[in-house]
Amino acid sequence: MSLRRLGLTASFAAMGGVAFVLAAAPAMAREEGMWTFNNFPIALVNQKYGTNIDQAWLDNLRSASVRLNGCSASFVSGEGLILTNHHCVLSCVQELSTAENDYVQNGWMPATREEEKTCLGQTAEVLTDIIDVTDRVLAAGQGLTGAEFTQARNAETAKIQQENCNGDPKLTCQVISFYRGGQYALYKFRKYDDVRLVFAPELQAAFFGGDPDNFNFPRYALDAAFLRAYEDGKPVETPNHLVWNSSAPAEGDVTFVVGNPGSTSRLLTMSQLEWTRDQQLPITLIQGSELRGRMLAYAATSAEAKRVATDPIFGLENSFKVWYGQNQALLDPAFMAKKREEEAALRAAVDADPALKQRIGDPWSELAQIQSVARELYLPYRQLEQGAGSRSTLYSIGRAIVRTGKAREAGRVSDAQMAQFGQRVSADLPIDAGLEEVYLGFWLSKTREYLTVDNPQVKALLGNESPEALADRLVSTTRLADPAFRAQVATMTPAEMAAADPLLAFILANDDAAAAIGARWNNEVTAPTAQAAERVAQARFAVYGTNQYPDATFSLRISYGQVQGWTYRGVEVPAFTYIGGLYERATGSEPFNLAPSFAAAEDRVNKQAVYNFVSTNDIIGGNSGSPVVNAKGEVIGAAFDGNIHSLGGSYGYDAALNRTVTVSTAAITEALRTVYRQPHLLAELGVE
Amino acid sequence: MSLRRLGLTASFAAMGGVAFVLAAAPAMAREEGMWTFNNFPIALVNQKYGTNIDQAWLDNLRSASVRLNGCSASFVSGEGLILTNHHCVLSCVQELSTAENDYVQNGWMPATREEEKTCLGQTAEVLTDIIDVTDRVLAAGQGLTGAEFTQARNAETAKIQQENCNGDPKLTCQVISFYRGGQYALYKFRKYDDVRLVFAPELQAAFFGGDPDNFNFPRYALDAAFLRAYEDGKPVETPNHLVWNSSAPAEGDVTFVVGNPGSTSRLLTMSQLEWTRDQQLPITLIQGSELRGRMLAYAATSAEAKRVATDPIFGLENSFKVWYGQNQALLDPAFMAKKREEEAALRAAVDADPALKQRIGDPWSELAQIQSVARELYLPYRQLEQGAGSRSTLYSIGRAIVRTGKAREAGRVSDAQMAQFGQRVSADLPIDAGLEEVYLGFWLSKTREYLTVDNPQVKALLGNESPEALADRLVSTTRLADPAFRAQVATMTPAEMAAADPLLAFILANDDAAAAIGARWNNEVTAPTAQAAERVAQARFAVYGTNQYPDATFSLRISYGQVQGWTYRGVEVPAFTYIGGLYERATGSEPFNLAPSFAAAEDRVNKQAVYNFVSTNDIIGGNSGSPVVNAKGEVIGAAFDGNIHSLGGSYGYDAALNRTVTVSTAAITEALRTVYRQPHLLAELGVE
Repeated sequence: MSLRRLGLTASFAAMGGVAFVLAAAPAMAREEGMWTFNNFPIALVNQKYGTNIDQAWLDNLRSASVRLNGCSASFVSGEGLILTNHHCVLSCVQELSTAENDYVQNGWMPATREEEKTCLGQTAEVLTDIIDVTDRVLAAGQGLTGAEFTQARNAETAKIQQENCNGDPKLTCQVISFYRGGQYALYKFRKYDDVRLVFAPELQAAFFGGDPDNFNFPRYALDAAFLRAYEDGKPVETPNHLVWNSSAPAEGDVTFVVGNPGSTSRLLTMSQLEWTRDQQLPITLIQGSELRGRMLAYAATSAEAKRVATDPIFGLENSFKVWYGQNQALLDPAFMAKKREEEAALRAAVDADPALKQRIGDPWSELAQIQSVARELYLPYRQLEQGAGSRSTLYSIGRAIVRTGKAREAGRVSDAQMAQFGQRVSADLPIDAGLEEVYLGFWLSKTREYLTVDNPQVKALLGNESPEALADRLVSTTRLADPAFRAQVATMTPAEMAAADPLLAFILANDDAAAAIGARWNNEVTAPTAQAAERVAQARFAVYGTNQYPDATFSLRISYGQVQGWTYRGVEVPAFTYIGGLYERATGSEPFNLAPSFAAAEDRVNKQAVYNFVSTNDIIGGNSGSPVVNAKGEVIGAAFDGNIHSLGGSYGYDAALNRTVTVSTAAITEALRTVYRQPHLLAELGVE
Repeated sequence: MSLRRLGLTASFAAMGGVAFVLAAAPAMAREEGMWTFNNFPIALVNQKYGTNIDQAWLDNLRSASVRLNGCSASFVSGEGLILTNHHCVLSCVQELSTAENDYVQNGWMPATREEEKTCLGQTAEVLTDIIDVTDRVLAAGQGLTGAEFTQARNAETAKIQQENCNGDPKLTCQVISFYRGGQYALYKFRKYDDVRLVFAPELQAAFFGGDPDNFNFPRYALDAAFLRAYEDGKPVETPNHLVWNSSAPAEGDVTFVVGNPGSTSRLLTMSQLEWTRDQQLPITLIQGSELRGRMLAYAATSAEAKRVATDPIFGLENSFKVWYGQNQALLDPAFMAKKREEEAALRAAVDADPALKQRIGDPWSELAQIQSVARELYLPYRQLEQGAGSRSTLYSIGRAIVRTGKAREAGRVSDAQMAQFGQRVSADLPIDAGLEEVYLGFWLSKTREYLTVDNPQVKALLGNESPEALADRLVSTTRLADPAFRAQVATMTPAEMAAADPLLAFILANDDAAAAIGARWNNEVTAPTAQAAERVAQARFAVYGTNQYPDATFSLRISYGQVQGWTYRGVEVPAFTYIGGLYERATGSEPFNLAPSFAAAEDRVNKQAVYNFVSTNDIIGGNSGSPVVNAKGEVIGAAFDGNIHSLGGSYGYDAALNRTVTVSTAAITEALRTVYRQPHLLAELGVE
């Protein structure tokens, strides 16, 4: 669960080539960095670890690496077999389950390749080219501000993508920002959109220890699963795959993690960090906690409520721990003092160079000014627009229908886009009315609480109803749970929509106000932030050179490190756990109960086999499923978590404490052999 | 709800006289201060408002002021009639209710005095004497540290109280700290312990707007009720009472609020404020939010669950808003900058005076050092000791039984104390098994989350059970809900207790560890903080003189101010609301539905009567029910809330924004006359 990217981008689009060259960085912790493949510090690593990394080694790793929806993965056989985490395929396992066969609980392990089933919506993307497009993107926004700036940039980005991928369904082209706008690159991928589920263990084996153990170590989780890429109904041939090494590494061994870290904020300025610490994260934590409490109590009301709420609760609890860990980092005075020093040094260097100063101006003060605007706008923006509807699927699809309808009425939607949208809204969606009421009641009640009863938008939202009664009414009267109805209303005009469905009517009645606060946020916060941040990035390049790694942007990165435990407050945490430890930790009570297959295999399993291990690699959410490879480039595990200290990794890396948590190929091999008895998979992996 | 003191002191004890004299304060906002009765700035107020306040005026106010359990009040007739807030008597109204008569919903308004019924446990205390005991208290702890210091201080305090009240049940003697240990005084009270309920309106009239309107304004709440002090079965004669003035004040009129503000933290040092902001309040808010969510969802499971959970939810939501407001103040950079400047100025003044520096030392650095200890200890202290059991009544009474049993086994409990304890534990307590499970499950699960699965105390608490299963088992098997059983186990030895009841066994098994972390907190945080804070207070006296007001300590104070609205972000909030506004605000949906009596009276009620009003008086939780008086000393209302800005009042007062919210005597009179038709009460108040 842990390292899955929080929140996914809506869509991607497409070209090919080679990119910018970077050069030399300021005070960086050893082993810090989520490096792009065109700027990896090869010489430094070879020198430090005695490795023999070269461009071919990197190219092979890149070609074997796979980007999934919100996760990372790798090819581990020549026939398109993909290793990732169980939590990256959990929703697929759930969708494949039926009343008779609960594969979440029992695991998914078809006997033949013919029984491998497609995970709907899942894509597998392999990065093929990186092309620098910085100049084009920067030129597009030149001299513009606010909405014009954003529109011009978006238009140029779409154009670059279109030029490079040309609508080819086998390609993805995506312009990605690096260094907070310091550079832009077109990432081009080979895309596979028939991805099938090959093997998933029991949830209780994959997620043993549940939320209490999440982001903690020692750990005993078989958070691994296999997918397979298909094309034209056949497994894809993948000669560039990683060799499966089923031996565990030793303490101190060098490790590389390759994947798509989702988002870090290490290049934010002090004023941005302070706003995050003082407003965004506290509200997010406080509201998230109350929702968590409501969901936990809802799950306790019936067996069915528990079943449908379990996954959403895991998701929220995972996010909660991330926010909490981020906030702890920002509340650490020593951490913030270091950030403050770094910023002061950069600003002093700019001030000392009149030409540079002339070019850069003072983006730090501009960003501080933007934060005071953010402080004013954030609560209404969060409640009315960004977080409107909380986690309600009905609300979110309803809003998409409303906004598409409005755009269509304004002539801004092509027939092709409309066809695509119609497909999207008519796809099956798991909707639980009880949970929907929890989400909507929570959102409406918090909106009234934070914006107050006397706020005009709050009055417009609630009318004479209580938040709970309104939520109940909307959920019980809307027909948006029906895919056919969604397809039908999606083609209506807004006025027809309002007449056709109470939830659409409700969304429409409040949508102008919501869109207005969204526009203010974009024009007064997002756009000027982008412009100022670009100049901070340029200052950093000018002062420190380009030998730095950029913030994570769910684009392919490689980090280096070594297998190593850590010591915190005098307590030493060893680098490895062993399968035997699982049986010692099991209490019989959820979430510390043994998966049945593991319980049954206790007498024959190799308890000395390494189960999970930690290494100093620098990772973040989105790295879930990342292959962990040794110096030879062989896969030795799948990263699935960070330790609790790694959560501060959003803002900075501490080599003494930050750790990646990996499920070893040794454990996966042992489980396939002894616990789940999957000889055909072992054979495909080249084991025995 | 709002201004009730958060958390009550366990018990008080007793003498009489006159106290220290104070002298001239640093940069204080106009109208700032919760002044003690022996240090009120008479001349300044007379000069500013043209009033004629003198000692006799103050003495009469003091003699007419009443301290209730966690609330404030005043005598308003010669026959012991007491005006306070509805939320201060709500638990009494609930206890007097039966299945047939729900007085919470319908109001309590007996036709005759004979039907006035006792509020069990409620006392009414009138301050008679203030005696400075600073020298004795300070001398007692001289040269001691840690546990010895605390014990010596406690012993001397108990001795002073005993010497002055001598066990007289009609007196309360309490040594109270002022200026964070800068001064100590013995407060002596005349105590009445038969306090009966005279009148309470419908809850929906008193708490119209519920949590959404709580701490907000405009406001439409009849948060008023009447009690009566009895002695020897007869109403107490109270010649010193306030004259009832049923006219509303005008904008700008001077107002005085007299009552018992519970706690402020305006004299904390920067390091203490930062610890509060960075650790204590965030954890409290985050955990409180989750509990709130769990309780709200529990309340939604059945009508009975809603009934029993409504009050506890009000209480938690009220606390939540206070914590949130406090944290917002501490997150305000401008506010903290002002605090930082004040501290720097005081420290500079000390440094500039070698003799003073020699005497004071550097308590600021000592306190900063103590905060780093607090950072390490707070989570285990909070989870295992301070907040153990969350809000579970069973746990709290169980722990009292266990600890008294241990103390008794160690020979530290007298027969008299034991008899008193036996009475206390055998009193009826409202216990709802469902809520108890919510509280205990929540506490156990958060303890595991914050201390981690691998913590030895967590392992000891949970054994092989899940938090929820353990909570269920303890609640369903304990017999502590039975008062007779409690009385029985209270006399047992600890070993017998463990054998007699599963919850007592559970508490006992974990009590040594809990007591140990409690002792560490007391010895390493509380005691050294007290010692350092006393020297900060002495520095302040030396530098600024004694013309300052002390932090609130639930002791009688008077604040001055005037009727005045405020302006925030360009929005003007007027000083008054009128009864007619209630009908405009009513939506028909909870909590904005009209109380039936108000709905029925709509045609005859005087809609032009002032309902609630705001004034600039400096107040805080504990001031609930405080008489608001005019220049003549006549009562014109009962304070029941502060506005949202007043919540930062814990740390500082802002005259531009902080406001007291009062229900006017004009509205109470109109309600008694037209809505509830209580001519006998009006007659007693001297109206008509």
